[in-house]
Amino acid sequence: MKFGGTSVADLDRIRHVCSLVKQQVERGDRVAVTVSAMAGETNKLVGWARELAPLHNQPEHDVVVATGEQITAGLLALALSASGTPARSWMGWQIPIRTNSTHGSARIETIDPTELNACFQEGLVAVVAGFQGVTHENRVSTLGRGGSDTSAVAIAAALRADRCDIYTDVDGVYTTDPRIVPRARRLERIAFEEMLEMASLGAKVLQTRSVEIGMLHRVPIRVLSTFEPDGEGTLVCDEEDIVEKKPVTGIAYSRDEAKITLHRIPDKPGVAAAIFGPLADAGVNVDMIVQNVAEDSSKTNLTFTVGRSELNRALEAIEKAAAAIGYRDLTHDTGVAKVSIIGIGMRTHPGVAQTMFRTFAEKGINIEVISTSEIKVSVLIAEEYVELAVRTLHSAFDLEGI
Amino acid sequence: MKFGGTSVADLDRIRHVCSLVKQQVERGDRVAVTVSAMAGETNKLVGWARELAPLHNQPEHDVVVATGEQITAGLLALALSASGTPARSWMGWQIPIRTNSTHGSARIETIDPTELNACFQEGLVAVVAGFQGVTHENRVSTLGRGGSDTSAVAIAAALRADRCDIYTDVDGVYTTDPRIVPRARRLERIAFEEMLEMASLGAKVLQTRSVEIGMLHRVPIRVLSTFEPDGEGTLVCDEEDIVEKKPVTGIAYSRDEAKITLHRIPDKPGVAAAIFGPLADAGVNVDMIVQNVAEDSSKTNLTFTVGRSELNRALEAIEKAAAAIGYRDLTHDTGVAKVSIIGIGMRTHPGVAQTMFRTFAEKGINIEVISTSEIKVSVLIAEEYVELAVRTLHSAFDLEGI
Repeated sequence: MKFGGTSVADLDRIRHVCSLVKQQVERGDRVAVTVSAMAGETNKLVGWARELAPLHNQPEHDVVVATGEQITAGLLALALSASGTPARSWMGWQIPIRTNSTHGSARIETIDPTELNACFQEGLVAVVAGFQGVTHENRVSTLGRGGSDTSAVAIAAALRADRCDIYTDVDGVYTTDPRIVPRARRLERIAFEEMLEMASLGAKVLQTRSVEIGMLHRVPIRVLSTFEPDGEGTLVCDEEDIVEKKPVTGIAYSRDEAKITLHRIPDKPGVAAAIFGPLADAGVNVDMIVQNVAEDSSKTNLTFTVGRSELNRALEAIEKAAAAIGYRDLTHDTGVAKVSIIGIGMRTHPGVAQTMFRTFAEKGINIEVISTSEIKVSVLIAEEYVELAVRTLHSAFDLEGI
Repeated sequence: MKFGGTSVADLDRIRHVCSLVKQQVERGDRVAVTVSAMAGETNKLVGWARELAPLHNQPEHDVVVATGEQITAGLLALALSASGTPARSWMGWQIPIRTNSTHGSARIETIDPTELNACFQEGLVAVVAGFQGVTHENRVSTLGRGGSDTSAVAIAAALRADRCDIYTDVDGVYTTDPRIVPRARRLERIAFEEMLEMASLGAKVLQTRSVEIGMLHRVPIRVLSTFEPDGEGTLVCDEEDIVEKKPVTGIAYSRDEAKITLHRIPDKPGVAAAIFGPLADAGVNVDMIVQNVAEDSSKTNLTFTVGRSELNRALEAIEKAAAAIGYRDLTHDTGVAKVSIIGIGMRTHPGVAQTMFRTFAEKGINIEVISTSEIKVSVLIAEEYVELAVRTLHSAFDLEGI
């Protein structure tokens, strides 16, 4: 069971979480609980750290910020013990949850289940501080924002748990954002691969890395609401456990997009390396790429997208490499957004992309860039059309609730 | 260097502490800094823990409360690094500071200096989270209120430091409480033994255990003010380092006293064991004890004192053992206080106790119980006379400032 920051925001909510864990234990299950910091706590700590050291010393930053989860873990263990459900807290270094040394966005390498299993043998609920681990240098590390999801699924995998229940403030994964499409429907099941695309393409229910770990170790993840715990939520599971496969399962969108175009670059081998090498060195993640045929055959245009926060870094990297690339103009546009349709059913239902393009054409929405994979089609459009695009696709692919 | 909670109460004060540490480093010294939680933080955490679990689960309580010092250690390391003084934080489990398993008031057993020395080799200031350690079971422990003093002196001892500077909100150790005697004088030096008596007898400048460790390992402790760091403070040191030995160095008092009297107990062997055995079993610390001769030779009265918070526990223990003890009446009085004169000079200046008793007689202060050691005389008097007693003694023993 994993509870996020809003689920443990104050003592009353911690008591509520305590009662949910207690119920699960009373059903005869062995339970490990992963908790986030109380809502607001992490921001407070991050604020203090930034104010004192704008330059950043990420290892110390982690030392400060990781206390948020430690507090919640201790408090929940206290509440459980006081309510007659023996429990003990675990910090990353105690288990240990071993991570690499990329402080602030560390990656879990191994979790030793020995101590936690011994804890279960003693009849204790294990309450694990999420979001944190310990490096090989024995320093506290944090996994980055939303890292508690990753902690929870990784712990479930290490324990070979039957399931990882992620309690959050929504009651499941929806066909799309209900703020845009009020008739969006809660999915009963979604495949790992689909959830992975949904998460990376903008749906914020689960952290991408947590879905990857669930997929790799085949740990079903259930997303459900802390505040309506009797709901069924959404089960993120193996593809073979999903019977009815519609062509499209869900629609995601992201406004965090910026488009960069290099005009009239030489159309010859090596030019892509000259562009994307410097971008990779600058730590810029390039998403969609399209190369157009230009006026004359020796020159072409190249367009790609990056996250908006990485735009300036990307432009600098390109400008520095201008001589090696040899472009005439460099333009960019932040008034764009990405809309994606996702579904494992695409593999067996041809014509899905065509439906999408026809729908957009009918509404007069111009597609600027297209990117596809086996189970998704993403398009870049002008940002102002996002809501219209999502609503239109939702009904075109028959995703409406009953 | 050790900084208490008021010294690191907010980000501005942490910046100030940072500048004091920086100055010390720039003098060419290798520095380990021990920090408390930001003032108020510990109380907030204790409040949360108590509200969720009034029954207490001390190990989890420690997990929650120890975060306060972790935050300060991380923040100070951040501030130091940002100001060009490379630093890193250390939690109890990282060093490790190994303690016994008495959670909430754990005792430091060993401190391994290897990691801290390696940290100095790298040119880093070591910022240590005070008040905490790790048990042999690898769980977080806390040393109890004021434990950061103990952490600091124990770390200084482990590092064979030249000195342990305790920065606090007063500028040194005074001959007595300046709130009672405005002309009380800051002591330049005080012997470990004297400081130990001062601390146990009510002076709240240093934690008793920290003075014991300083004495045992011969680590001079300097008490000075964070807010007037140019003052000389008071050096707590070996007796032989003090040249001028007055008969009395300081006067301590404590209102946290309760007096219990058992009337007409049998005057025979074994009766003391029948009384103090049950009290020890109930965890009651008995302080002063006096046995009076009663009316007839076979019966006697016995009076002893305990801390006020332990009074009820003491009375219950005695009443349970009533049959075995065989007293006629059990009375108690909380309107009492203890006043003590302390000085290593007493060893060589006879007549100090007599001066004290005569002074009290002249002021009409009745002495209820007396207790002495080689370097102190304590008396129990009615609480209402405390100020008068302290003031009178202060001038009788020539302790006034110039």
